[in-house]
Amino acid sequence: MKELFGINVSAGYGIGSVYCYNPAEYIITERKIVDTTNEKAKLEKALILSIEQLRKLHLDNAHDIGDTADIIEAHITMIEDPDLKDSIVEKIEKGYNVEWAVDKTIKEYVDIFNNMNNEYFKERSLDIEDIGKRIINNIIGKTDKPLSKLKEKVILVTKELTPSDTLSMDKDKILGIVTETGGKTSHTAILARTLGIPAVTGIDTITELVNNQENIIIDGTEGKIILEPVEFQINTYKQRIEKRRIQLEEEKSFIGCKTKTRDGYNCKIYCNMGSPEDVQQVLNNDGEGIGLFRTEFLYMNRQTPPTEEEQYNIYSNVGKKLKGKEVIIRTLDVGGDKKIEYINIEDELNPFLGNRAIRYCLQEEKLLLTQLRAILRASKECNIKIMFPMITAFEEIIEAKKLLEKAKKKLIEEEKSFNKNIKVGIMIETPAAVFNSAEFAKEVDFFSIGTNDLTQYTCAVDRMNTKVSYLYSPYNPAVIKSIKMVVENAHGEGIEVSICGETASEELLLPLWISLGIDELSVIPRNVLGIRKHINSISRNETLINEAIKCKSGDEMIKFLKNKSVI
Amino acid sequence: MKELFGINVSAGYGIGSVYCYNPAEYIITERKIVDTTNEKAKLEKALILSIEQLRKLHLDNAHDIGDTADIIEAHITMIEDPDLKDSIVEKIEKGYNVEWAVDKTIKEYVDIFNNMNNEYFKERSLDIEDIGKRIINNIIGKTDKPLSKLKEKVILVTKELTPSDTLSMDKDKILGIVTETGGKTSHTAILARTLGIPAVTGIDTITELVNNQENIIIDGTEGKIILEPVEFQINTYKQRIEKRRIQLEEEKSFIGCKTKTRDGYNCKIYCNMGSPEDVQQVLNNDGEGIGLFRTEFLYMNRQTPPTEEEQYNIYSNVGKKLKGKEVIIRTLDVGGDKKIEYINIEDELNPFLGNRAIRYCLQEEKLLLTQLRAILRASKECNIKIMFPMITAFEEIIEAKKLLEKAKKKLIEEEKSFNKNIKVGIMIETPAAVFNSAEFAKEVDFFSIGTNDLTQYTCAVDRMNTKVSYLYSPYNPAVIKSIKMVVENAHGEGIEVSICGETASEELLLPLWISLGIDELSVIPRNVLGIRKHINSISRNETLINEAIKCKSGDEMIKFLKNKSVI
Repeated sequence: MKELFGINVSAGYGIGSVYCYNPAEYIITERKIVDTTNEKAKLEKALILSIEQLRKLHLDNAHDIGDTADIIEAHITMIEDPDLKDSIVEKIEKGYNVEWAVDKTIKEYVDIFNNMNNEYFKERSLDIEDIGKRIINNIIGKTDKPLSKLKEKVILVTKELTPSDTLSMDKDKILGIVTETGGKTSHTAILARTLGIPAVTGIDTITELVNNQENIIIDGTEGKIILEPVEFQINTYKQRIEKRRIQLEEEKSFIGCKTKTRDGYNCKIYCNMGSPEDVQQVLNNDGEGIGLFRTEFLYMNRQTPPTEEEQYNIYSNVGKKLKGKEVIIRTLDVGGDKKIEYINIEDELNPFLGNRAIRYCLQEEKLLLTQLRAILRASKECNIKIMFPMITAFEEIIEAKKLLEKAKKKLIEEEKSFNKNIKVGIMIETPAAVFNSAEFAKEVDFFSIGTNDLTQYTCAVDRMNTKVSYLYSPYNPAVIKSIKMVVENAHGEGIEVSICGETASEELLLPLWISLGIDELSVIPRNVLGIRKHINSISRNETLINEAIKCKSGDEMIKFLKNKSVI
Repeated sequence: MKELFGINVSAGYGIGSVYCYNPAEYIITERKIVDTTNEKAKLEKALILSIEQLRKLHLDNAHDIGDTADIIEAHITMIEDPDLKDSIVEKIEKGYNVEWAVDKTIKEYVDIFNNMNNEYFKERSLDIEDIGKRIINNIIGKTDKPLSKLKEKVILVTKELTPSDTLSMDKDKILGIVTETGGKTSHTAILARTLGIPAVTGIDTITELVNNQENIIIDGTEGKIILEPVEFQINTYKQRIEKRRIQLEEEKSFIGCKTKTRDGYNCKIYCNMGSPEDVQQVLNNDGEGIGLFRTEFLYMNRQTPPTEEEQYNIYSNVGKKLKGKEVIIRTLDVGGDKKIEYINIEDELNPFLGNRAIRYCLQEEKLLLTQLRAILRASKECNIKIMFPMITAFEEIIEAKKLLEKAKKKLIEEEKSFNKNIKVGIMIETPAAVFNSAEFAKEVDFFSIGTNDLTQYTCAVDRMNTKVSYLYSPYNPAVIKSIKMVVENAHGEGIEVSICGETASEELLLPLWISLGIDELSVIPRNVLGIRKHINSISRNETLINEAIKCKSGDEMIKFLKNKSVI
């Protein structure tokens, strides 16, 4: 028996036989060619094919959160980047063969990313390599995808896994993923979490330490693997896996139930959604509505913003599928780490403290007006609410509402119908909005607390920055006190308040949210039933929150809540 | 009469005759040279001379805030940059003359900055051009500095002013500065504010519109200039100038007075300090202590951190000059926008949310320990306190205090004396620290609220980002409420609390700070007496704060406070 420790990038357990995946490296040779037109045509064809493949992958991977879509879209955007193509064509025109031109260009890009002295960008170099392989495969006509044709269930062991590998593999056959490289922010890690596959990265030389068909245990929760496991360990992990299976089975019995604490308090469990394909997952998991419909996907991978008609169709379709359940549409949240090609936001020293979301949209009236018109029109036949992100100042609410009134007036003139009483809310994501929440509550119909950004700004920490991410903690008493303040101010004005960040799914925090009287939690679809089950098993406890805010630190808060959940 | 409007980069009024400053452009010719060794020697000499000149300028410009020092140091750092030199030498080795090699290299740098699509970096291209001119002047032996030899008082009108021009000019002869280019964040603007010279930038073609010796009015408060002013205007501005003169005269009578409201409340007026040269300004303006001694200058423009002995000498010297008055030394606040060559902080996507100040120092124990030992040793004979910046989490306070204990223990072992009861405080700059202030107050001896960073994080806005800086406002009720929370929590635990950001000098906010019971305001030396005069003329008003926090927006807050200050 031997335990090896790595990074716990995706929780869960697996026992099974190893499948060592060592994709053969190509040898790309430099050749001089004469017919550059032909090489360029090959490139063009391969680029188009690559984009088509990715679009198909997108459809095949309609999962419950936006991450998969984001990754595929990021790949499409990179392939569509005119600089990439120009750089390849330039080499072809100098008389080099297309494969070599692609390979050379990709290596140049990888060098740039690797020289950036930043872990996040280094992870991105894996994406660009992946794209390069895809384009070259399409040039040379290689279609071998061993991971899509697995015969039995395996634990996949490999040096590194490209996002393409992850997307094209047959997920039902993968019990776990172990890699030598890759960190928590690698796309493979994100995808593994999305797919619910246990994964451990950063186990050096693992591909040399195990053999095909060898039996191993993967523990993605702790971040370890066990080679040559003894019977006791196998039994322990079998029990854990069985426990989880039963848990999932039990959760299913909560489909169709109300979410209600033992003392009779109702809390709605809504879903976050990153693209219309997610609707099925919402319905399958009995989400009670959409608490956060992110609209960025509509604006990505294109040269111009979506028209009113395009948007109307999508909002309206989603709304209809929800059959009367609420759909809260968030207006465009561009900027920060989300770039869109035709939206020209200047390079910023601190994009998270920069021109993003409502800030940008209020400067681009036409863009926001078009979206508001589309949402309003869809509200005619569906239960839709509007939500503005990233509010900091009172004036922003007034400006946004003025624009909404302008859109309404115009629609009335055009005799287009809409819900004249459509509800308007804001996201509470900045400390300014927390402190101003009593005044803001007088101006809007509901609040939604975006705990990811709120934690980030409260702790003044970029959670993607590995050097300081230890300070990013929703358990920091400051975050809990902020949420308490917002809830009290919202209820003081008689409006509803929800939580739509990741903390809405944190089991340890649920008793706090319930005791505070949160009206709604918005989570990824896969979490709806587990949370409902949990909430239905507990009661509200008004003293809990007053005790919690006496904690001095995040660690103390975690200990306190763990103790309370045992009692 | 003709009024022209520009950007109000430095407040104040001036009436006087125009001096058009049009520095002749050189014509640098490309020549082929054979003796590259000689050219390289010329370069070396010019670089050394340039640094010496800048160091002398530094001494000649020992002003009341750290900005001047920062700018000069930034220039020195750029000249010392090995990449710059390498790039010049490379060209010389290809057989080009040194002037051309410098000029060409500088132009390459300017292109890079200008292509950055960011206003802040574009402003920096002016600095690099300035450095280039200095180096070339030193190569060709040009020493003409017309601005340092002015015969009479003038209003300087020019296309643009380099930081070197501003620094070398005879300040007593400059009544105002008008330029065609440059924004609020240009170094010239910062320096004009530091020197108290009225300045208006962004008046297009102004150098063509006025003639030498023509009489004009500059209004740096409103951001306009008046050509061919009529008598009425001249009289109005004469009155304003006279009023300001009397004001300064009156302020002088407050030297040696206590700062005390009419109802008998004492508030100490301390000074912020960026380098030891500022001490004289503190004493001249009767500062009651140093509320914020920034120590970054000690670490800049060198290859290794300062030794304990170097630091000890400086802390101890400053402390002795203050003759028993308190000196609050802030430990190294590196990171964010402050880079130090040998301190290797990774490139960060959001440096303001990154590895800075106490975060970095707790990772580099030795660096912080050395500073703490130096401060402790200086505390033996001076009235010194220690302050840790950028605290977010309770654990950081505990860690920092542990290190301090470690330093104390070691000093005792070495039989080195220090003040065993040295007071330890923290800066309140993050919303997390605001919300945690009740618990933090139990662990430290005092708080100092850094309102610049606190406003930045509360409003989630980088104030250097011109696209969103309108959201940066200390008048946002959220900021006022945050400060109220901190003061109440500090006083609840019986510790003192000060404000050391720019809002400590905002006249409109002073009644609030006083009514809240702020124990100390720390400001730039030139503001001490004006603030004392103001405070001595008002009374505390406990209802003021409760009315203020009912304001919905920053604009409403300003209106409210303006109304109150009239009554």
